[in-house]
Amino acid sequence: MLRLSPPSVDRFIQTDTLTMHFGGTEANVAVSLAQFGLQAHHVTRFPDHALGRAAAGYLRKYEVSTEYVRYGDGRLGLYFLETGAGSRASQIIYDRVDSAFSRINADTIDWEVVLQGASWFHWTGITPALSQGAADCLLAGIQMANRLGVPVSGDIVYRSNLWQYGRTPQEIMPALTEGCTLVLGSKGLFSELYDVVGSTFQEAGRAMMKRFPTIRYITDTKRNSISASHNQLSAKLFDGQEVHKSRVYDIRPITDRIGTGDAYMAGLIYGLLTFDNLQQAVEFGAAASALKHTIPGDVNLATVAEVMTLASGDSSGKLKR
Amino acid sequence: MLRLSPPSVDRFIQTDTLTMHFGGTEANVAVSLAQFGLQAHHVTRFPDHALGRAAAGYLRKYEVSTEYVRYGDGRLGLYFLETGAGSRASQIIYDRVDSAFSRINADTIDWEVVLQGASWFHWTGITPALSQGAADCLLAGIQMANRLGVPVSGDIVYRSNLWQYGRTPQEIMPALTEGCTLVLGSKGLFSELYDVVGSTFQEAGRAMMKRFPTIRYITDTKRNSISASHNQLSAKLFDGQEVHKSRVYDIRPITDRIGTGDAYMAGLIYGLLTFDNLQQAVEFGAAASALKHTIPGDVNLATVAEVMTLASGDSSGKLKR
Amino acid sequence: MLRLSPPSVDRFIQTDTLTMHFGGTEANVAVSLAQFGLQAHHVTRFPDHALGRAAAGYLRKYEVSTEYVRYGDGRLGLYFLETGAGSRASQIIYDRVDSAFSRINADTIDWEVVLQGASWFHWTGITPALSQGAADCLLAGIQMANRLGVPVSGDIVYRSNLWQYGRTPQEIMPALTEGCTLVLGSKGLFSELYDVVGSTFQEAGRAMMKRFPTIRYITDTKRNSISASHNQLSAKLFDGQEVHKSRVYDIRPITDRIGTGDAYMAGLIYGLLTFDNLQQAVEFGAAASALKHTIPGDVNLATVAEVMTLASGDSSGKLKR
Amino acid sequence: MLRLSPPSVDRFIQTDTLTMHFGGTEANVAVSLAQFGLQAHHVTRFPDHALGRAAAGYLRKYEVSTEYVRYGDGRLGLYFLETGAGSRASQIIYDRVDSAFSRINADTIDWEVVLQGASWFHWTGITPALSQGAADCLLAGIQMANRLGVPVSGDIVYRSNLWQYGRTPQEIMPALTEGCTLVLGSKGLFSELYDVVGSTFQEAGRAMMKRFPTIRYITDTKRNSISASHNQLSAKLFDGQEVHKSRVYDIRPITDRIGTGDAYMAGLIYGLLTFDNLQQAVEFGAAASALKHTIPGDVNLATVAEVMTLASGDSSGKLKR
Amino acid sequence: MLRLSPPSVDRFIQTDTLTMHFGGTEANVAVSLAQFGLQAHHVTRFPDHALGRAAAGYLRKYEVSTEYVRYGDGRLGLYFLETGAGSRASQIIYDRVDSAFSRINADTIDWEVVLQGASWFHWTGITPALSQGAADCLLAGIQMANRLGVPVSGDIVYRSNLWQYGRTPQEIMPALTEGCTLVLGSKGLFSELYDVVGSTFQEAGRAMMKRFPTIRYITDTKRNSISASHNQLSAKLFDGQEVHKSRVYDIRPITDRIGTGDAYMAGLIYGLLTFDNLQQAVEFGAAASALKHTIPGDVNLATVAEVMTLASGDSSGKLKR
Amino acid sequence: MLRLSPPSVDRFIQTDTLTMHFGGTEANVAVSLAQFGLQAHHVTRFPDHALGRAAAGYLRKYEVSTEYVRYGDGRLGLYFLETGAGSRASQIIYDRVDSAFSRINADTIDWEVVLQGASWFHWTGITPALSQGAADCLLAGIQMANRLGVPVSGDIVYRSNLWQYGRTPQEIMPALTEGCTLVLGSKGLFSELYDVVGSTFQEAGRAMMKRFPTIRYITDTKRNSISASHNQLSAKLFDGQEVHKSRVYDIRPITDRIGTGDAYMAGLIYGLLTFDNLQQAVEFGAAASALKHTIPGDVNLATVAEVMTLASGDSSGKLKR
Repeated sequence: MLRLSPPSVDRFIQTDTLTMHFGGTEANVAVSLAQFGLQAHHVTRFPDHALGRAAAGYLRKYEVSTEYVRYGDGRLGLYFLETGAGSRASQIIYDRVDSAFSRINADTIDWEVVLQGASWFHWTGITPALSQGAADCLLAGIQMANRLGVPVSGDIVYRSNLWQYGRTPQEIMPALTEGCTLVLGSKGLFSELYDVVGSTFQEAGRAMMKRFPTIRYITDTKRNSISASHNQLSAKLFDGQEVHKSRVYDIRPITDRIGTGDAYMAGLIYGLLTFDNLQQAVEFGAAASALKHTIPGDVNLATVAEVMTLASGDSSGKLKR
Repeated sequence: MLRLSPPSVDRFIQTDTLTMHFGGTEANVAVSLAQFGLQAHHVTRFPDHALGRAAAGYLRKYEVSTEYVRYGDGRLGLYFLETGAGSRASQIIYDRVDSAFSRINADTIDWEVVLQGASWFHWTGITPALSQGAADCLLAGIQMANRLGVPVSGDIVYRSNLWQYGRTPQEIMPALTEGCTLVLGSKGLFSELYDVVGSTFQEAGRAMMKRFPTIRYITDTKRNSISASHNQLSAKLFDGQEVHKSRVYDIRPITDRIGTGDAYMAGLIYGLLTFDNLQQAVEFGAAASALKHTIPGDVNLATVAEVMTLASGDSSGKLKR
Repeated sequence: MLRLSPPSVDRFIQTDTLTMHFGGTEANVAVSLAQFGLQAHHVTRFPDHALGRAAAGYLRKYEVSTEYVRYGDGRLGLYFLETGAGSRASQIIYDRVDSAFSRINADTIDWEVVLQGASWFHWTGITPALSQGAADCLLAGIQMANRLGVPVSGDIVYRSNLWQYGRTPQEIMPALTEGCTLVLGSKGLFSELYDVVGSTFQEAGRAMMKRFPTIRYITDTKRNSISASHNQLSAKLFDGQEVHKSRVYDIRPITDRIGTGDAYMAGLIYGLLTFDNLQQAVEFGAAASALKHTIPGDVNLATVAEVMTLASGDSSGKLKR
Repeated sequence: MLRLSPPSVDRFIQTDTLTMHFGGTEANVAVSLAQFGLQAHHVTRFPDHALGRAAAGYLRKYEVSTEYVRYGDGRLGLYFLETGAGSRASQIIYDRVDSAFSRINADTIDWEVVLQGASWFHWTGITPALSQGAADCLLAGIQMANRLGVPVSGDIVYRSNLWQYGRTPQEIMPALTEGCTLVLGSKGLFSELYDVVGSTFQEAGRAMMKRFPTIRYITDTKRNSISASHNQLSAKLFDGQEVHKSRVYDIRPITDRIGTGDAYMAGLIYGLLTFDNLQQAVEFGAAASALKHTIPGDVNLATVAEVMTLASGDSSGKLKR
Repeated sequence: MLRLSPPSVDRFIQTDTLTMHFGGTEANVAVSLAQFGLQAHHVTRFPDHALGRAAAGYLRKYEVSTEYVRYGDGRLGLYFLETGAGSRASQIIYDRVDSAFSRINADTIDWEVVLQGASWFHWTGITPALSQGAADCLLAGIQMANRLGVPVSGDIVYRSNLWQYGRTPQEIMPALTEGCTLVLGSKGLFSELYDVVGSTFQEAGRAMMKRFPTIRYITDTKRNSISASHNQLSAKLFDGQEVHKSRVYDIRPITDRIGTGDAYMAGLIYGLLTFDNLQQAVEFGAAASALKHTIPGDVNLATVAEVMTLASGDSSGKLKR
Repeated sequence: MLRLSPPSVDRFIQTDTLTMHFGGTEANVAVSLAQFGLQAHHVTRFPDHALGRAAAGYLRKYEVSTEYVRYGDGRLGLYFLETGAGSRASQIIYDRVDSAFSRINADTIDWEVVLQGASWFHWTGITPALSQGAADCLLAGIQMANRLGVPVSGDIVYRSNLWQYGRTPQEIMPALTEGCTLVLGSKGLFSELYDVVGSTFQEAGRAMMKRFPTIRYITDTKRNSISASHNQLSAKLFDGQEVHKSRVYDIRPITDRIGTGDAYMAGLIYGLLTFDNLQQAVEFGAAASALKHTIPGDVNLATVAEVMTLASGDSSGKLKR
């Protein structure tokens, strides 16, 4: 998606210039992993015009491979973001009806080629919300990942104003979740989407693992919104036994809150792939997310070294010469 | 519509900022007439969100009344413009599928209220191309204008990539044209849309007047494109008797070519309403169009005094202190 | 007035670009009320040149009617604003000598026409400070409002460096205050301008109501300036019986402090016109003022919904999708 | 003066940013001479606030000494410039009433100190138009220059909308012209200001030299305005014997036309001080003026080498590595 | 290299912002070929810091593979460009001493891997001018290309202010030229670098082919510099038999002249690889170069379709919707 | 040096524009002293090209004399600054190898002329780190200052990645320190550079005074880095008897941290030259440094009045009209 936002904290009606950033929840995870030095691919469908090509160029610039991007008809999904400050909230106007991506279908991608040799596959609940084709294509991908032994993570985010194509998430999401190794979601979501309940995060996690036996990890973040410019953030990871909790990160000022959940997910995936220590993995994820708040745009451009510094407790922000 | 364009002559892929201008062929005519000191209303339907409100604000700023703007669901129509230079052409990517305006219908506007006391009604061929509802609403407006004795002008521009709703312009345009006093179009268009032919502009005009007896004037412009930065422009007006031709305007450099046809139409309407001399009217229109090429954005912000200076033959551009 | 300010927190000598915002204490109140959905008119006199026209365009864009704006000779009032941060204060260089507005006089405005059917009339102490004509014109307006039963509010702000035309505020202000329903001012001002004293806000308010029997409400705000980037703000409203106090709003970061008093006034007027509860009115005013600190420019562009959210105690600034 | 202009060729009402350039006819000459490597002083009076200080900083940056700038009350003179293109003229809104400079008087400057050791003194007809004090101060300067044997040049430009303080240029200008060595003006001006007539430039020049015996040179430029983006320019210099004419410079595109007359004057003064050849001097002046049209702002930043290249006939603009 | 230039046509001393473009003669050719749809690699050495990484990101964005970019010590080569207009020339300040690229050596690149399967290898005379290591590395590449049967083109541009490392181009260039299939250069260069003379381009070309038997094509462009804003350009290609000449392209206005030679080279290489017609190839090259003049930055972003339109004689720049 | 930084808090790879600020540790002190109203000279060597001239123009603008700037070969020293926020650190990429300044030598400056009549001479440890010539030239300056009785201050900052010319700071710094009246440094530095130890700042200071008998004052600042946006700062001054400590300044938000040490030094020098009270001097220095954090660029543009306000304990940042 292309994000268009007024400069600084101007309101929509005040501006005659819009700043461009490309993003999208899965793309954000891909860019972040690429910044951490992993080889990342974004699998999608873009419109076959100069702006669709520009979107791909943006990903390549940030080291994501666009080898598996397909081009065709449909619009470039857009969203307009007005950035708030203090007690004024940021606002988003979505404009992604009939995007080229929503016209994807099960045949668009040859998942066997894409996933051969991959070490991770990540998806989010935005994709199956857009169209039956998108849901079908995603399911095919997850199933191929399972067949090839590629771990799968799902951020089961649910946006009720999407899901316009006649199916409910309760119909679609369970089959997708079945193939997951790692799920990002809250107690509330587990209940709403799968009717899986538990009185605590740990209990709900345990119930999810029972219902979806492939799941090895359940994770979630917790955000305390003091103002649009000041948040506190932490994360937790349940491995079926224990809940590993990160430090609470005090974040102010907030430069850009968009994509901070994706930054967490990328950090956690990197952590799981790199460290043999779940506590370190969740801390890396939370620190990555905290750092994303300081970076303009949807994608996290923090390096491993920067995340490690913060994850180790140094938030001093001292000038590096 | 909201136009989004890279600064200067940057290509789409080079930019990370887009400049905003609101426009649209009928809105452009309204703004230009308002700048000439006439009271102008824009009758349309905008999305009911901050950007739809910003579009209305833009019109009001330039002295167009938004009293008859309706707000509702649907997108804000967009287009992306890359401005060329020299031998490199400008390019437009349209993105106006499913706009709030395309969801207008015959009941959205109470034309009797709108047109009471009006001295002119202008429409273009973009509107009926968008949806059946838009065509219906327009037809109702033209018929009410006819009933109230309000002169009607139609710019019968034909864009083949619009007209996606299952009807052809050949089916729709004749009924709309029937109520017109003034038609802007070329020989080619008369033939294509109405099967009205003539070997010269004059003959074709005469044939149009025979077919559509309300028509009193046929007009057209002629553009010689030497490069994206250098054009020559003239206009002609046929009144059933005689073809009144404007001077040929040599235009360089070209700052912004978009909306120059609308600027001509507004100039001509102003001329017809103001001067009792057709030659003066067409010259005013052509000079207005020439000046628009020097003004960034879709709308012509030239004043009557500026147009008069140029129409009188003074193109020296001497500094006014 | 046109405000010209260096970008961000640059000092005057550092910049070669100035950002434009139009404003002025009464205009600010008008824009804010228009954003709240009320029909607002700004009654003033602007220079008859392109910048004067641009000032009017700015107001119309933000839904204020410029029907009663008069155009004539004189300058456009300007002020130059350098925005501070942290412990560095913002600085204003005023440049409004001999403005078109200061050349207004009692005959410029036909108040009977303007105020017919109005539900509120607002003025501030800046106007009578500029010229005898401005004071005369204002007095005529207040008297007409009184005759037509239109409630009048006065922000009796006193700037000693204005008042250059030979009269003192002590001579001029009492007659203007006589017609007021609502007065914004402090104990100190009551004493300085009217020699009305009281040891507390409540007592001073009571004394004002005795001296000016039309006054039903006395109001004031209290600001604790921790730094140029961090303030605390509250408001109180005395109705002759009771002092209604708002919550204390913690404001950081501060984007733009200019016009926050006017935002309070607009919020309070809206509250008095809308709610039948003085506590709610003063809370709405204070929350409106707090939100204005987050908005660039002189005018408050917060919506009723945004103010209500904050007034109800939710300052979390959570992203609205 | 501070010039404020919309970016690119935007109209005043379109912009929300203004670009700053400091300038003023005499300051422009000073900066240009400083760029040519001469030691130049600007003698003026600026307001004693941050913008007045910024004006002085601007001059120092471009190597003009501000040792003789005095600071005091009054405004900073402003003008608003809208830049035209093609057949649309540029427009200026002056805003310099009651400037700090207009409050200068005969005692503000100790001309003996200022002019000691100077090799040239330049003034223009703007200064005596502003106030009696400015005229008095200037006259004192010219008389001191005469006493110290410093050559004096006067650009006798006449702007009728200035001269508001009760005196006419016919009363004031002759005394100032009496001390001049070099006068820039046209036949028309000689007649209007001094009632000195001649049927050709040469004859009028001869008549001027008779009336004002100190004058050794009369000079003028000729501009053919094809459009706001395309001019042709030449200059001529009469030495009492012969008229030396420069080449005709074809100038397109025009980046900035303001200050091109001052650039000519500076080039001519430099030429007279440097070359022992009047033809070379007038050619240098005309080439300097032509180059100024390519430079944004009021002042000419061309170097001697660049002017020499153009004056020698090389207008190829070939890249210098 | 990173190019830094003031906005628009500002002089260096006027600006406080610099626009960034990455480029470099070989990189420019690579980007242009990638835009034409060919797979292009840039083989170089960048500094191992954030700006070196940004340089690589820039190339990837424009579809050039950075697989063979090596990172290490040394600076990022810079140049500062001031863009001229009309009769004012553009100026470059080079700042590339001790660049990371100049520290390349014969072992840095494994040419066998790089060139395996390649269809073209292009180099320029800038590379061997920088250091012995760069010359050595290039020679190794050319020899490997010869061994693998990959055609080699050399732009033998000679900049005398480079070549600081103790060798002359006369010592170094012949060995490099020996492996070439296509050489871009002028009669003058042939004589200066190789002591190969001929009274016409054709004769000199023939002599070059005699001296260097691998050469099949000699090419050159001809530029008529009317001003910095207006050039005329043509190209010619000698195949040992015949000189194929392109049309003369009239180019105005010029947006950016940098990299237009590289654009020609890329166009010619594309033409030679794609068309079986030398006339078409040279025309494509010349049209590509002409179009580059309209594109900001060092690299040509014209598409094949755009070049074809211009090469076929349509320079009208008509808006594409 | 020229500093180039992405706008706002963008990362290097995100930007295509760089903001320019000139600076350098000694130049920063000079500008700050000039803003305080003292006459300041910067003695240096700049490259003899347009950017070197622009550097000098920058200094003159801010009232520093460039009379003793010499021009010659070599580069303009650069550094690239990415500004962090919150827990993300700012980063600097230095690029000053082979600067024109590093090519200075003992003969470049005629110190006797420069220092005649001076009231202070300031140097820093950056200068002798760059080249033998720079160290020699500095030593000559210090010795001349001593001879003429001019007090000398040295900021003995040590950057290990400089010092590439074959000498160690331990070899070079003692001779430079010998001539100092005031030294800015920490216990750790005294030990590392001079092998002078002490268990507290006071004891180490006393030991320094014993080793270098000309030293009358030892000073240092203390920074508590809570985040890149929030620091706490204080300073202390030891006069051989007593340690004078400033208030602790709470600084948030931080606009620009660069040059805050130089701002302290300039404030302290101003304090020592102006006040007869060491406590006041150190407080003025610390307040100056605190204010610098609010000012974009390397140099402190705070005025004496602003520093006095803060030094007196008023950090309210209240708007000044």
